[in-house]
Amino acid sequence: MIKTRLQALVKQIQKANLGGLLICPSEELLFLTGYTPAMCMRFQGLFLCADGRYFYVCNVLYKGEVENGYKGSVKVYDWQDGESMTDVVRTALTDYGLLGQTLGTNSTAQAFNVLDITRDCDVKFVNGKEVLEEARIIKTAEEVDDLRRAASITDSAFEKVLGFIKPGIKEDDIFKFLCQKMSEAGGQSPWAIVASGPNSSYPHYSGLDRVIQDKDLMILDFGCIVNGMRSDMSRTVFVGSISDEEKKIYGIVKEAYEAAVKAAVNGAYIPDIDKAARDIIGKAGYGECFVNRVGHGIGYMIHEGPYIKKDNKRNLEPNMAFSIEPGIYIAGHLGMRIEDIVLSTEKGNEVLNKSNKDIVIV
Amino acid sequence: MIKTRLQALVKQIQKANLGGLLICPSEELLFLTGYTPAMCMRFQGLFLCADGRYFYVCNVLYKGEVENGYKGSVKVYDWQDGESMTDVVRTALTDYGLLGQTLGTNSTAQAFNVLDITRDCDVKFVNGKEVLEEARIIKTAEEVDDLRRAASITDSAFEKVLGFIKPGIKEDDIFKFLCQKMSEAGGQSPWAIVASGPNSSYPHYSGLDRVIQDKDLMILDFGCIVNGMRSDMSRTVFVGSISDEEKKIYGIVKEAYEAAVKAAVNGAYIPDIDKAARDIIGKAGYGECFVNRVGHGIGYMIHEGPYIKKDNKRNLEPNMAFSIEPGIYIAGHLGMRIEDIVLSTEKGNEVLNKSNKDIVIV
Repeated sequence: MIKTRLQALVKQIQKANLGGLLICPSEELLFLTGYTPAMCMRFQGLFLCADGRYFYVCNVLYKGEVENGYKGSVKVYDWQDGESMTDVVRTALTDYGLLGQTLGTNSTAQAFNVLDITRDCDVKFVNGKEVLEEARIIKTAEEVDDLRRAASITDSAFEKVLGFIKPGIKEDDIFKFLCQKMSEAGGQSPWAIVASGPNSSYPHYSGLDRVIQDKDLMILDFGCIVNGMRSDMSRTVFVGSISDEEKKIYGIVKEAYEAAVKAAVNGAYIPDIDKAARDIIGKAGYGECFVNRVGHGIGYMIHEGPYIKKDNKRNLEPNMAFSIEPGIYIAGHLGMRIEDIVLSTEKGNEVLNKSNKDIVIV
Repeated sequence: MIKTRLQALVKQIQKANLGGLLICPSEELLFLTGYTPAMCMRFQGLFLCADGRYFYVCNVLYKGEVENGYKGSVKVYDWQDGESMTDVVRTALTDYGLLGQTLGTNSTAQAFNVLDITRDCDVKFVNGKEVLEEARIIKTAEEVDDLRRAASITDSAFEKVLGFIKPGIKEDDIFKFLCQKMSEAGGQSPWAIVASGPNSSYPHYSGLDRVIQDKDLMILDFGCIVNGMRSDMSRTVFVGSISDEEKKIYGIVKEAYEAAVKAAVNGAYIPDIDKAARDIIGKAGYGECFVNRVGHGIGYMIHEGPYIKKDNKRNLEPNMAFSIEPGIYIAGHLGMRIEDIVLSTEKGNEVLNKSNKDIVIV
């Protein structure tokens, strides 16, 4: 158990007027407790009450592992295959006074298990994902340092990869190069998306097979972890040359990026940040080609609060960390994106990534 | 869409008196439709109505991929980041007459998304996992053939690995050897658990680092896929020699295995199969060390119906496929398991794995 994180979450549980939270195995559980088991179809999770008490429920197959993981500091309720899971949950909920209460679920709670519990126990569940994210939405000084280091590792990998890209190599070669450079610099769990040519037009492209051609453009989207804090950076680069159409579109994306960063200062109303980027792309005639939100919060998870989108009606506070990543995607033709991690600060904001955003031809 | 599978599932939806099912990206969706996208935190899934109609809901980021995946045969409702997901789901539910109905969820539906839909739409969700499993619990002749082939590939890999195991190599070496042999024989997605020495005492051991020692015992648990149908086999083998205690425990596990297989014939009441194995282990004084169910159904997923456990109060029917895998686990000391896939048949049953269950010393 990580006491400061637990206390911050308990405050949010109370603020949300919940009886508690169910936190199934996940990065969220790891963040809160320093440990998470793996999850299978058998129900398991930590229940954290609004009064700060907590307990764990799992199948006996996981009991030893969970008790070891928490060094005996958490009471574990268990059941065996062939017995009723919901009977054990009911006993535990009764012991901790949670019957009749409303509990929030984390991002990995499985609907079928939660529905079985609801069927058999007098308890109500609601989406508790935001409550969990709220408890870590303001980064500590230490977390900010790790975010900076993680961002700096991506910056450095980007500088290095520019000398590596050339026609004839595969997306996979660039993927491996980026991951190796991040790893060498101390970045954990490095990952990368390399979307070249028409593949760049699919924001969720996950292939790696295409061979780089002369006159290609490509989106590089990559990141790593430093002490649990993540980086996430995207650049669009051009191979050999850039066409007039590409130059025009890149200029629009860059202008949208700059407008969003300028808007994303402490105190800003979040929908206005989204609007700043969207207005520029819309006025240039590419509104239909910018189909995703402008950004997402980042920290212990790659996507967490605050989400930078028009229905997130709140204001930035100091030490919120989030991506700014406007893009234009013309399906089957081309896509471009510029993405940096930005921190809102007392004075305005700080862009954690320092790499160039000018046109890069390799 | 795979028509025969769709029709079988629609029958089960009607039998369960549901308005429909929500099937999020998963092996279940792949089985039913021949395609599944990957899933992120943004809600998406196929809704299948009791009258056989269906539609898909996803974020616009996934729309192209889903339409391609289904070759345009499924109506896709989409929304953009910044818009309300539940508004789109409500529109779709209205169009298909599902408001006011009860829908089942599959195994991958996320609680937080389902709870948001329940909050905003007049619809109720229940656990629909069993309905999905029920629709494929009786294997077709073709599926039985593929189960046999998948089992035969594990048998063959087991024969080969016996000549490979020796002190000084790592669990990881054995893992790689088994996977390579299954792959060479045409088994897709091969996997293996190699739990040596005290690691064998943890039924869910997932490490690979231990070096094999003389006088070790080890559990090998491994399988692969043939045309979507899975294998899953476990053997306990002894390195160099076997102690008297080990010989005694192995004898009990083998006896329990044989009793369960003998009991697992067409028409058998499933709790009796569990009891057959459990009685033997219990009478021998190791009841506390047999903490899991005797078996699980297998087919398109590694764990599906029928689960062979005492609260599954139904009878075996012809062409159900399931594991029989009693074990004894003494935490931190040793564990043993014998596991085969068994098919219930008109005449009784057929053990799909043919490998030896006698004591094997390598």
